[in-house]
Amino acid sequence: MPIRIYLAGPEVFLDNALEIGARKRDVCARFGLKGVFPLDAELDLSGLAPLDAGLAIGRANEALMRSCDAIVANMTPFRGPGMDGGTAFEMGFMRALGKPVFGYSNASGDYAARVPSTPAADGRLRDADGLIVENFAMPDNLMMTGAVMASDATVALPPSGATGIYDLTVFTRCVEGVARHLTP
Amino acid sequence: MPIRIYLAGPEVFLDNALEIGARKRDVCARFGLKGVFPLDAELDLSGLAPLDAGLAIGRANEALMRSCDAIVANMTPFRGPGMDGGTAFEMGFMRALGKPVFGYSNASGDYAARVPSTPAADGRLRDADGLIVENFAMPDNLMMTGAVMASDATVALPPSGATGIYDLTVFTRCVEGVARHLTP
Repeated sequence: MPIRIYLAGPEVFLDNALEIGARKRDVCARFGLKGVFPLDAELDLSGLAPLDAGLAIGRANEALMRSCDAIVANMTPFRGPGMDGGTAFEMGFMRALGKPVFGYSNASGDYAARVPSTPAADGRLRDADGLIVENFAMPDNLMMTGAVMASDATVALPPSGATGIYDLTVFTRCVEGVARHLTP
Repeated sequence: MPIRIYLAGPEVFLDNALEIGARKRDVCARFGLKGVFPLDAELDLSGLAPLDAGLAIGRANEALMRSCDAIVANMTPFRGPGMDGGTAFEMGFMRALGKPVFGYSNASGDYAARVPSTPAADGRLRDADGLIVENFAMPDNLMMTGAVMASDATVALPPSGATGIYDLTVFTRCVEGVARHLTP
């Protein structure tokens, strides 16, 4: 039985989500892993009200996560300075189950550098609303970054600048590391 | 032993985080619950490099969550149309542990209404990057909303419009419902 990797990320919102999922699975297979893309559940949502359809997808994703051995999350910033919230939820879910949490981002640089801020008199950065901008030399929030580092890994990042949001270069390097990490 | 509620939310980034935490604990106490605010771990981070400090906070929060019986998450939009990613991670963490997940937001309305989008020929909404805007009649991503509804609750929302981000009116109503739900 190959090791099963839950492939989390906002690719599910692309028109060609199924194609991207197939490409991600191919990359996993190249390294001896079984990639599991959220849409794999192939639900029949016909006739369901939007709310019920959303709930059915959520239940299916939870079951898929429980069937997997680890998660590889796309942490690329999504509609703001931070990653997709649904993907963050899934990282926390797998972390609580004690399964290894891996992540990558197609944007280099720390989270703090992506939030417009000004340094205050106490030296801390503050955003336009006066909220402290966490500055822990991490690519995103400390809970997600911490879950990856607790799995003896680091968030995989492009060497500099950003690649296309759904480019698979950094993902491929991440999966290569995951395979080294998880296979005997 | 009172029921312990993990109080998740971006309030930790406020200058008066400790004061807000104390007020949230007071609200919980009024309904017979023990509120546990993330900063309760009262870590000594002196001398630590930023990365190590962030990791220590993450470990402490995970231990606090394991010590709690349920979570009440502030899902108010944070630096974008969606909620704080760290809080989303924590909702997933508690969900995977099988503990009830509750949430509230100080902004009414569905997630889809907060993302600038245009309807495409197929009737689906698309954002400026061409990504589908999920439209499940939910206040945020289906994973977080689904976790709350799987706990036999709904995300608590203001009657209309938005209250101040850190106003505790909706929080108080949410905690009242949690107490009814969890206490015999």
